[in-house]
Amino acid sequence: MFKDFRLIAGRPVYIQVKDYMKHLMIKGALQGGQKLPSTRELSTLLGVSRNSVISAYEALADDGFTYAVQGQGSYVAPGAAAQAGSPDESAWTLDWKARLSSQARLAEELDIMKRGIRAAKGTISFTSIAPDESLFDLENVKRAFLERMAVEGNVLLNYGYAKGYKPLIDYLKQYMEHKGVDMRGKDMLITNGFTEGFDLVLSALGRKAGAVVCENPTHHTAIKNMKLHGFEIAGVAMERDGIHLGELKRALEAREYDCAYFVPSYHNPTGIVMSPEKRQRLMRLMAEYKVPVIEDGFNEELRYSGSHVAPLIAAAGGGNAVIYLGSFSKVLFPGLRVGWVVADQELIYYLESVKRARSIHTSTLDQSILYQYLLGGNLEKYLKRARAEYKRKYELTLACCQEHIPYASLTGDGGLHLFATFAEGFSTRELLDACREQGVIFTAGDMFYTNGQGQNTLRLGFSRVADEDILKGIEIIGRTARQLLG
Amino acid sequence: MFKDFRLIAGRPVYIQVKDYMKHLMIKGALQGGQKLPSTRELSTLLGVSRNSVISAYEALADDGFTYAVQGQGSYVAPGAAAQAGSPDESAWTLDWKARLSSQARLAEELDIMKRGIRAAKGTISFTSIAPDESLFDLENVKRAFLERMAVEGNVLLNYGYAKGYKPLIDYLKQYMEHKGVDMRGKDMLITNGFTEGFDLVLSALGRKAGAVVCENPTHHTAIKNMKLHGFEIAGVAMERDGIHLGELKRALEAREYDCAYFVPSYHNPTGIVMSPEKRQRLMRLMAEYKVPVIEDGFNEELRYSGSHVAPLIAAAGGGNAVIYLGSFSKVLFPGLRVGWVVADQELIYYLESVKRARSIHTSTLDQSILYQYLLGGNLEKYLKRARAEYKRKYELTLACCQEHIPYASLTGDGGLHLFATFAEGFSTRELLDACREQGVIFTAGDMFYTNGQGQNTLRLGFSRVADEDILKGIEIIGRTARQLLG
Repeated sequence: MFKDFRLIAGRPVYIQVKDYMKHLMIKGALQGGQKLPSTRELSTLLGVSRNSVISAYEALADDGFTYAVQGQGSYVAPGAAAQAGSPDESAWTLDWKARLSSQARLAEELDIMKRGIRAAKGTISFTSIAPDESLFDLENVKRAFLERMAVEGNVLLNYGYAKGYKPLIDYLKQYMEHKGVDMRGKDMLITNGFTEGFDLVLSALGRKAGAVVCENPTHHTAIKNMKLHGFEIAGVAMERDGIHLGELKRALEAREYDCAYFVPSYHNPTGIVMSPEKRQRLMRLMAEYKVPVIEDGFNEELRYSGSHVAPLIAAAGGGNAVIYLGSFSKVLFPGLRVGWVVADQELIYYLESVKRARSIHTSTLDQSILYQYLLGGNLEKYLKRARAEYKRKYELTLACCQEHIPYASLTGDGGLHLFATFAEGFSTRELLDACREQGVIFTAGDMFYTNGQGQNTLRLGFSRVADEDILKGIEIIGRTARQLLG
Repeated sequence: MFKDFRLIAGRPVYIQVKDYMKHLMIKGALQGGQKLPSTRELSTLLGVSRNSVISAYEALADDGFTYAVQGQGSYVAPGAAAQAGSPDESAWTLDWKARLSSQARLAEELDIMKRGIRAAKGTISFTSIAPDESLFDLENVKRAFLERMAVEGNVLLNYGYAKGYKPLIDYLKQYMEHKGVDMRGKDMLITNGFTEGFDLVLSALGRKAGAVVCENPTHHTAIKNMKLHGFEIAGVAMERDGIHLGELKRALEAREYDCAYFVPSYHNPTGIVMSPEKRQRLMRLMAEYKVPVIEDGFNEELRYSGSHVAPLIAAAGGGNAVIYLGSFSKVLFPGLRVGWVVADQELIYYLESVKRARSIHTSTLDQSILYQYLLGGNLEKYLKRARAEYKRKYELTLACCQEHIPYASLTGDGGLHLFATFAEGFSTRELLDACREQGVIFTAGDMFYTNGQGQNTLRLGFSRVADEDILKGIEIIGRTARQLLG
C-alpha cells in the first residue's frame, strides 16, 4: 500500500493525498473502522509534507470518509467503502438498446459524426468548414472576459434568464436593425447556437401539413433535425443565384407546408449567395402562398466584397412570417455556443418557455463575453482580418479547382467552401475512397441532398487547410477524378 | 440630420459613427446614390476626430453600404436602405399562436416563471434556492479562465465534442469513482446543466409503459419535463428518511413504468436526505421490479456534516440500471451551464447523438473553466466556506421556524431550503397572499405535487436571504399563519 501514489502538477498536494486515500477506502484497501497511518508516518510514506497530510485528513473528515478519535488518530468511517450493503442484489443489468425511443435510434442513425470517414494522421482534410483557429483573437476575448467579470462577475455566475443576457439581446437587436430588419413587433431569444435555435423552432411548430420545403441540397444538420421532428422534406433545386423559383412555385402548388427553410447566404453546401433581386421575388412568392420562412443567417457576415445584401427577414418588412436564426459560430468562435432567434414577439414568448424546459438558459459567461467583445468593436476588426484571409484562400482554392478538377460545374461565392458537381454517373464516394488512399479527404455531397441525389457532388472546405495542402490536395483530387472519368 | 448622434463609453468611436450612418441609410434619411458629407464636414457635425470618420467610411464601404468615387467622395450604395424592392407585398402576417405545437403550448402553460408571483422591491423572498452569489469565488474563476486560455485558448474557442471536454470528463469520472461508483461499463456525457441532461434522457427513453414513478412531492422542473415528454407520473409519498418503500412497492405492483426518478439528497422540496440504509433497500426493490432509475444528484455536495452518503448509482454496483444526473449548479455557479450524465456506455453512445442533434455541444469555455477550477482544488476550498455559511443559515432558519411557524411538520436536513406542512385544510396560497401584502414571499408547495395535493405546504429557500430578513420574514409568516389558523 501507498507505493502507487504519484503527484501530478497543477493540483494542490493535500487534495491529491485526500483523493488517493479515498480511492483506497472505496476499493476496500482501507476498511471501515481501520486506523489511518499517523500524519507523520503517511507524510514519509507518500513523500509529501506533513501539513499536506494534515489538511488531507481534515478534508476526509469533512467529506465524511473518516472520523477522528481525540488523542488517538483518524479512523475510516463505516460507510466509506463503495460496496457497503449488498450491491449484488441491486446490480441488475438491462438492455438499454431495446428500451430506446425511435427518436434516439434515428438520431444515432443520422449522426454523420458516427458515420464519418476516419483519416490517418497527416491527411489533407477538406471536410471542415469550421473557422481557422489561428485567426482567433485570444487577447481580446480575454480582455472581454476580464472586463465583464469586473463589472458584474457575481451576476454572471448565478442564474440568468431563459430569454438571454439582456445587454447582448439589446446589442443584437440593433445589429439586426442595421441589417435592415424592422424589429417592431418582433423579439429575440438567445440559444445555444444555430442548432438549438432550429430545434426549438421545429419543436414549437405545429404539424398540420407535416412537411417543410427547402433548397436541395441543403445543410445536413437541418435535414437531420427536420427528419427527427418527423417532417417530410421537399427539396427544390438550386440555380446559380439561389433557389429555382419556378420549381419552388410548382412545389408550393403541389401541397401545403408548415414552413420553409432557406439558407440565402453562403448556402451550405453550394456556397451560393442569393441575389438581392431573387430574395425579393422569393419573399413575394412565399407571401403569395402564405408559407412562413425559417431563415438560416449562416455566415452572412463573411461577405468579402460587393454591396450589402439584406437578409430575407428584412425583405419581409413589417410582416411576422420570417423566423431568423443567427450565429457567429462559423465567423467568430464556435466554442462559444451562442446563437439567436428573431421572430414575432408572441412566437418568441412561447419559444422562451420551450427553451426554459430544455436547458434553463444559455451560458451567461459565453453571452457576456460575446457582448463585451462586440461592444468593444472587436468583431469589425476581426472580420476585416478574417475576410481578407478567407478571401485569399478562397481565390487560391478556386484557381486550383479551375486548373485541376474536371467538374461539370463549380459554385461558391466566397465563404469557407466550394461545391463541385461532376458529370452524371460519376461517384464522389468512389473518388473519396481513391483520394483517401493518397491522403486527401473531402465531403461527398450526397448527404446534403433531400432526395438521395448528389452522388456526383462534393464539398471542399478550405478554411482550415494550409496553402501548400490546398495546392497539393486539389491536384490529387483532380488527377484522381480524371483517372476515374477515364 | 446628424443632431441626434450621442457617443457611449466602451465602444470605439469610429464604429459608433459607422452604426449611426447605417441607421440613417436604413431609415432612408440617406438614400441610395446620395453623396455622404466629406470626412472633414462630418467630423465637425458629429464632434468626433476626422480619423474616426475616415475609419467609419472605410468600414461602411467594407460592409457594402457605401462606395467611393475616386477624388469625389463616398456615396450610399443602392441596396443600403432596408426597404429596397417592395416589402409591402412580402409583409404578410400570420397568427403564430394558431400554428404552435401542443408541446409549445404545454411548455408555456407549465412555465412557472410565467406564472410566478411578482414581488415589489424590498420584498423578503424565500422563493430562491439558487446559491448566494456573495460567496462566489470570482478570483479563482478568473484564474482558471486565464490558465486554461493560456494552455489551449485556440482550441477552446473552436468546435468541441458533443460528448464533452475530455479533461473534464476524465476528472468527473474519477470524481464519481470517489463517490463509490463502479465506472466499469459506464460512460459520461456533458450537458447544459441538469435540465438538458434530464430532457435528453427522457427523449431517449422508449414509452412502452408511458409512465414514470417518483417521489411525491418532487422537483417541479422534473414534473414539467416528464409531462412535456408525455409520461404519466405516479408519485409516492415521502417519509422522514425518504420515499415510503411500502407505498413504492404497491405502486410497482400496480403497473409498469419506463423508469423511476429519485432525488435522494436534499430532496426538492422536502430537503430530506435519504438514509444509506433506505438507499440500499430502495435499490433492491427497484432491482426486484426491474425498473431503471434516473437519479438526480442534486446538491449532494452540500452535506454539512455526518458520514459519507453514496449515491444510488453506487449502490447499484456493477449494474447498469441507474442513470445519474450530476451538476454543480446549486453548489458552485448556475451561470456555468455544465452538468453530466453517468450511465451505461451504450446508452451514453445514443444520448451523445441526441445531444449533438439538439445543441452540438456544451460551451467549451464553461467546461474548461470548470475543469481548471476543479483541478486547482478550488471546489474543496469553496465548499468548506459555503457549507459553513449555509449551515449557519440553515440553523438560523430552522430555529426561527421552530419558534414562529405553527407547522404540523417541518423537514430539511440541510441544503438550501426547508419544507413546512400545515394542518389539513390550511391553504399556503392564502398564506402567501397575506404575507405578500406584508412584504414576504415563499413558494407554495402545491406545484411540487404530482397529484394536485400539497395545498397545505410551503418551501422556504434561505440561501439568498440576509440574516435579519430571515428573522423578520419568518416571524411574519408565522404570525400570519397563526392568524389564518384562527
